[in-house]
Amino acid sequence: MKLTKDNLHDFIRGAAILGTGGGGDPYVGRLMLEQELRKGADIEILDPDNISDDVFAINVFSMGAPTVFVEKIPNGAATVISVRKVEQVLGRKFNAIMPVEAGGVNATLPLIVGALTGLPVIDADGMGRAFPELQMVTYNVYGVDICPLVTTDDYGNSVTYETDTAQRAEWLARGVCVRMGGISQAAGYPMTGRQIKDTAVRHTLTLSVEIGQAVREAREQHRDPVDSLIDYFCTARHPRHAATLFDGKVVDVLRETKQGFTVGRVMLDGIEGSTGKHCEVTFRNEFLIAKTDGRVVATVPDLICCLDRETAESITTESLKYGNRVKIIGIAAAPVMRTPEALAVFGPRAFMMENDFTPLEELG
Amino acid sequence: MKLTKDNLHDFIRGAAILGTGGGGDPYVGRLMLEQELRKGADIEILDPDNISDDVFAINVFSMGAPTVFVEKIPNGAATVISVRKVEQVLGRKFNAIMPVEAGGVNATLPLIVGALTGLPVIDADGMGRAFPELQMVTYNVYGVDICPLVTTDDYGNSVTYETDTAQRAEWLARGVCVRMGGISQAAGYPMTGRQIKDTAVRHTLTLSVEIGQAVREAREQHRDPVDSLIDYFCTARHPRHAATLFDGKVVDVLRETKQGFTVGRVMLDGIEGSTGKHCEVTFRNEFLIAKTDGRVVATVPDLICCLDRETAESITTESLKYGNRVKIIGIAAAPVMRTPEALAVFGPRAFMMENDFTPLEELG
Repeated sequence: MKLTKDNLHDFIRGAAILGTGGGGDPYVGRLMLEQELRKGADIEILDPDNISDDVFAINVFSMGAPTVFVEKIPNGAATVISVRKVEQVLGRKFNAIMPVEAGGVNATLPLIVGALTGLPVIDADGMGRAFPELQMVTYNVYGVDICPLVTTDDYGNSVTYETDTAQRAEWLARGVCVRMGGISQAAGYPMTGRQIKDTAVRHTLTLSVEIGQAVREAREQHRDPVDSLIDYFCTARHPRHAATLFDGKVVDVLRETKQGFTVGRVMLDGIEGSTGKHCEVTFRNEFLIAKTDGRVVATVPDLICCLDRETAESITTESLKYGNRVKIIGIAAAPVMRTPEALAVFGPRAFMMENDFTPLEELG
Repeated sequence: MKLTKDNLHDFIRGAAILGTGGGGDPYVGRLMLEQELRKGADIEILDPDNISDDVFAINVFSMGAPTVFVEKIPNGAATVISVRKVEQVLGRKFNAIMPVEAGGVNATLPLIVGALTGLPVIDADGMGRAFPELQMVTYNVYGVDICPLVTTDDYGNSVTYETDTAQRAEWLARGVCVRMGGISQAAGYPMTGRQIKDTAVRHTLTLSVEIGQAVREAREQHRDPVDSLIDYFCTARHPRHAATLFDGKVVDVLRETKQGFTVGRVMLDGIEGSTGKHCEVTFRNEFLIAKTDGRVVATVPDLICCLDRETAESITTESLKYGNRVKIIGIAAAPVMRTPEALAVFGPRAFMMENDFTPLEELG
């Protein structure tokens, strides 16, 4: 897989859909990446199935509330400072860059850092979707240390964390993130090729391009792009359950930027097949739980996506507004995300919800 | 000067008086230091007038709200972790330890770290008093970099800050301090012997012992210990203006632990020579400004101390309570603390007060 000006739009569209409402504004992410590609950057993508065990990769991401990212744009150069600081603490150089999550910004930032440093980017991440907190990645679930973690602000001020758990690193780094203005540029979870193969969710970049392409082709061929997206998942090489959960319009949005997160809920009234029904989706950067007429229809870690009902373009939690005509769709999370260990870290109870996880396909 | 079991009580008493209500509970500080001395620790104190230019010292301190220190005791071992982390970043070992400030805990902690590491302690600090924020030291005023700064919690989790200004380090480290439970153990302002001679307030440890001794001797000789303390300053080798500003009893205390600081004010009704008058002293960890019947009688950086009117024992801002019979005394800050550069960093306006600094002796 190679990322070029040709498949860039597909990639961004797909990554934003996997971002489940979070991971930053895809418009911002696209502009940042286009700028690097226009400079002639050639970003090499490595297939995790074929990497050597002694690859040494660092995960990079923007941390903070997506509401803030809209005004305070994520910063590639500051992210490179974080990478260099981690190298300094470890006394060892990285030879690859990696995303922690999918999403409009956090899927593109690693590619930008790849372009800035000349390092290849691994086609894998820590969730195959987006999550709000640093401990919520398969790496952590399956024993990779987040530390040394470094976060840097736009002025190049950096903070290095060495903690006993990823949850504690999240707690401390979030406090700093708020004081850095609601966004910080992070590098953490240094990983060997062996650890990547053992713990990462593979081929998220390829998947992003493919689903972005499925949506584009449906539009070109005047098919329904949301239906085509669902078909893609159901008939893919590794099929996953996917379904439209609700068809409606946004009638209310409650949204706050609080302690470094964008939290709230969106209320929808049904149209077409959902006429007469009501839907509520709760979010914390990402969509966490969807309820139709009070009944749970999908919950984390399964993906809940809010898509424009005509174009299937992803609508992020910070940009949702009254009047949006949307379809809420559910996509089953990768199997590695649904184990008991994984659910303990990012299942519904990790978000203080009162229900246990039930797979999307059983909620019908 | 040597610190032993014999002059320990004098030292603690004197350091707490210079702490101007902050710097931690002297009782806690004394217990911590007694424990080390009982183990047979021999703490070498270096005279800053006689050190070599290539001494390389690190400042250590507890950061946080003194209200928290009472329950969550400062931690010598965690402070040593911070020192080692600074060494790791700089790739160079320290050969001396230094206090940033006077006070019940922050004057003793460097001695404890000296005992734990076997390193000598410099008889100097960054203010000759206590202040609430990290940038409020002569080192910073006169050009010494606070970074790398490290703060560590009781579990050994450490955070390293590399920032453009000391004020930004304070801002970020304060956020972490709150999330570490309201107290963190810090090491910062790495300094050479040359920098110590150029920027530090010298002989604060010796001064602490001497004023503690003056108070003790007055008690033994049935003289008024508060008057004797004032006499000490007025007739010392380097005389400084000192005066009793108010004699009264505490009738109200407003105190909150907020964003990592102990903030509030104490109201006093006059007794004896102050009968019929009222006094209000505002604090942020330390006492900042004293007003009698609405008129300013002392302000930072001059020292405002609240002493038991019978024993001259210091009363800290976190332990003040209704009914305390106290004398409020003012002591002129060292000349190095009263320059325009210094006042810009810790004069009244740095604390959002509306008045400029007027020396204690002119407020009469």
